[in-house]
Amino acid sequence: MSDISEITKALLKFRDERDWAQFHDSKNLATAISIEAAELNELFLWKDVKESEKVDIQKIKEELADVLAFSLLLANKHGFDVKTIILDKIEENRRKYPISKAKGVSKKYTDL
Amino acid sequence: MSDISEITKALLKFRDERDWAQFHDSKNLATAISIEAAELNELFLWKDVKESEKVDIQKIKEELADVLAFSLLLANKHGFDVKTIILDKIEENRRKYPISKAKGVSKKYTDL
Amino acid sequence: MSDISEITKALLKFRDERDWAQFHDSKNLATAISIEAAELNELFLWKDVKESEKVDIQKIKEELADVLAFSLLLANKHGFDVKTIILDKIEENRRKYPISKAKGVSKKYTDL
Amino acid sequence: MSDISEITKALLKFRDERDWAQFHDSKNLATAISIEAAELNELFLWKDVKESEKVDIQKIKEELADVLAFSLLLANKHGFDVKTIILDKIEENRRKYPISKAKGVSKKYTDL
Repeated sequence: MSDISEITKALLKFRDERDWAQFHDSKNLATAISIEAAELNELFLWKDVKESEKVDIQKIKEELADVLAFSLLLANKHGFDVKTIILDKIEENRRKYPISKAKGVSKKYTDL
Repeated sequence: MSDISEITKALLKFRDERDWAQFHDSKNLATAISIEAAELNELFLWKDVKESEKVDIQKIKEELADVLAFSLLLANKHGFDVKTIILDKIEENRRKYPISKAKGVSKKYTDL
Repeated sequence: MSDISEITKALLKFRDERDWAQFHDSKNLATAISIEAAELNELFLWKDVKESEKVDIQKIKEELADVLAFSLLLANKHGFDVKTIILDKIEENRRKYPISKAKGVSKKYTDL
Repeated sequence: MSDISEITKALLKFRDERDWAQFHDSKNLATAISIEAAELNELFLWKDVKESEKVDIQKIKEELADVLAFSLLLANKHGFDVKTIILDKIEENRRKYPISKAKGVSKKYTDL
């Protein structure tokens, strides 16, 4: 079993033991991802880049795990193959960010 | 190679072809995750639960892929094993959300 | 003194008593707004529209106050007149959302 | 009429001309605030503090105006007096962040 399948299986078991699928419609899952992403950002709030790299690693693990967990639950809900959707997005980004224009540049594709 | 390793490898290649690692400090990666999470949420804005389940699947794939991509880049930056950090978080959540108290209930653990 | 000026004055006093202006660059203020917005969203997470309207009013007040506080600090930092920037945005939105096309419709202007 | 009342009146007029109140339940308004906050953050993404202070002022005005607009609509929905809720939050923050402990320090009150 792939890593992603194993993780997803554990997430679904945890969810179903608690009868939580009823709450996991797409909109609420998307909101949960956003909330966890904000908690991750809060670890770095007010800190400059140097201080940011000294943030407690355990806390980053916990908040990032939450973002990933809800993301994988949303992917599972729609039957997405996680590897496929990310590799597909990378391909689309190749068109938006051709190396000749994007190399070493942080601008959004609409500003390239 | 595991799925996650394969995806991460592709993400790093895309990043390095464009010399973008210089922009990918933890704080900016966390912000990127948040921004993409908001774009995902925007697909469901103003819609009720029924309409939300009719959102264009392709768009959900694209926005969720972006959230996952930056999340995996942040995990890679800190050398996290994605499966481990999520399974560890599930274990921590078992303590916060015992089945006896949490089953069928959507409250935050602080309100259980 | 207008309400906004009075509020801003109190926010600046609180900030300066604690010598916090040093942390309030635009990027960090924007991140703070995002984090507080997520805390506001968390009050409604997993709830349907009916349950959402029964959320503790005091908590909505507190989280919304935080979003507004950091927003006003960012506006003050750039010398924005809050009334002007909002009225100007309303005018811009009139063009994006003409009544003839937008009435009773929740689509984003790019989909009208 | 206070500034806030004037702004709110204009926002309500714009909303009602388009028959949009039907979409503006608290949960969706909170999500809208979050989405606009992310668009504000996107202006500073990948930029360091120096570059962040050179971001196009007009764009900051527009995105901040959106955050404030939805925030004022949510406040209006619940009949909040904006000045009161912010001044009340400042008072609560005095207790969480006493000057003796918080001066010159960016830590969250739970870490003071």
